[in-house]
Amino acid sequence: MQFTKMQGAGNDYVYIDCFAQPTPADVDKLAIAISDRHFGVGGDGLVLIQPSEIADARMRMFNADGSESEMCGNAIRCVAKYLYDHDIRRTPTLNIETGVGVLKLELQAEGDRVQQVTVNMGKPILEAPRVPTTILPTGAVVDEPFEIDGHTLSVTCVSMGNPHCVCFVESATDELVLGLGPKIEVDPRFPNRTNIEFVEVIGRGELRQRTWERGSGETWACGTGASAVCAAAVLTGRADREVLIHLLGGDLRLRWDETTGEIFKTGPAVEVFSGQWNA
Amino acid sequence: MQFTKMQGAGNDYVYIDCFAQPTPADVDKLAIAISDRHFGVGGDGLVLIQPSEIADARMRMFNADGSESEMCGNAIRCVAKYLYDHDIRRTPTLNIETGVGVLKLELQAEGDRVQQVTVNMGKPILEAPRVPTTILPTGAVVDEPFEIDGHTLSVTCVSMGNPHCVCFVESATDELVLGLGPKIEVDPRFPNRTNIEFVEVIGRGELRQRTWERGSGETWACGTGASAVCAAAVLTGRADREVLIHLLGGDLRLRWDETTGEIFKTGPAVEVFSGQWNA
Repeated sequence: MQFTKMQGAGNDYVYIDCFAQPTPADVDKLAIAISDRHFGVGGDGLVLIQPSEIADARMRMFNADGSESEMCGNAIRCVAKYLYDHDIRRTPTLNIETGVGVLKLELQAEGDRVQQVTVNMGKPILEAPRVPTTILPTGAVVDEPFEIDGHTLSVTCVSMGNPHCVCFVESATDELVLGLGPKIEVDPRFPNRTNIEFVEVIGRGELRQRTWERGSGETWACGTGASAVCAAAVLTGRADREVLIHLLGGDLRLRWDETTGEIFKTGPAVEVFSGQWNA
Repeated sequence: MQFTKMQGAGNDYVYIDCFAQPTPADVDKLAIAISDRHFGVGGDGLVLIQPSEIADARMRMFNADGSESEMCGNAIRCVAKYLYDHDIRRTPTLNIETGVGVLKLELQAEGDRVQQVTVNMGKPILEAPRVPTTILPTGAVVDEPFEIDGHTLSVTCVSMGNPHCVCFVESATDELVLGLGPKIEVDPRFPNRTNIEFVEVIGRGELRQRTWERGSGETWACGTGASAVCAAAVLTGRADREVLIHLLGGDLRLRWDETTGEIFKTGPAVEVFSGQWNA
């Protein structure tokens, strides 16, 4: 079976082109085997690029533990690049079917290779019970004080389909990210648990973010997290509507459109290598 | 550039066949890029399989940080398998040139694929100043008491070209491996620092080993460590001269030859996938 390893901001998956070959059987087991970083190809999971009846292609993604995910903002950029670079769909706009519906992507190519992809991340959800958080009974949680473990943080809560707790800090230290992150994740004020972003403000158009992901710990890049950070930075008056965010795995550019209320995320997609998996 | 990813007991490297293609330039930089588990192929390092003027082939190995190593007992098995399976040298005995000289390997194939490879690891060095350790001024350190951090361990010191401190324990817990391992590594009684093996005795022919590697932390498998453990188990009367050792990454079979005094190590070699690296 042919595969291609791709990464977007350090979030790396093994991609299987199911236009060129049949969809593999037992995908959950395959995802576990192929994602292993010592005994397999290694990656955060497995992504199938399949034909779709309602879009240019369909993406199905499986985590390294074999479970299926609806969507990943870093992976979908790689799917778009693959479709374009490999001449399956060579158009600057692509519609891709995911577990959360059909998403529209804008591709920026240099020569015949896509470098950056923009995806519409949708509108942020701010109403506390819908994030969900119990920090306030109604309305948006914007720069509210949050006491935990002897620290007082100022938090802004945003859902991008999944819950985020954004904390602007002087310095996103290990003590905060690795020390407080896991405690905030399971704090009862977040009934569905939460992702946490610790954010340093460099300027009105530039932020630095470290992410504690719900169920995963610190990660290289979190696309919904960067979107939540963009919304939180605007809501708290710390940044303009277009920001460059530095994450551990690379840079993402976020724009919160004033007219539509939607957040657009632009980031890199890189093909690392291709190979043959025989197991 | 074509590459093949192989692993032996979980110790995984990217192999470049320099019989079929030129030796790549700037190998140190290539090793760093290709070994990265998120942005590269991912592995413990890079191994070149080259023609040799004095043996069937030459192996040169580079760690993930770009530095060159003399030898790795898990990698050399994979080199032997590659030479055989890819029809470069299809003989049951192979001589491979390494940074510590030419080593002779015995191959066990099923059909046209090698499954297990035996390598002569040489004779253990037991004389304390040559390990080196200062636990005793002369002679072999065999089941000597070793006080550290409130614990009293019973240690046996063996050099297999690199120093090993073997500790037989009831249970190789995280507390011992991750807690005491790094402290013993840098203890002044080991002037060149040391690798540490925590070993559970299952029977006279079966052991379980966890390894704290000097400079690397806990690792999946350590071939020189398993050899040291075999010697220590025999010297302390805990096992016979042929033992199966379970490591985190797989099983190794060790035999300390009574006649020659050499230790022979047999273990698996697995080709995981092959690919094309374009960077």
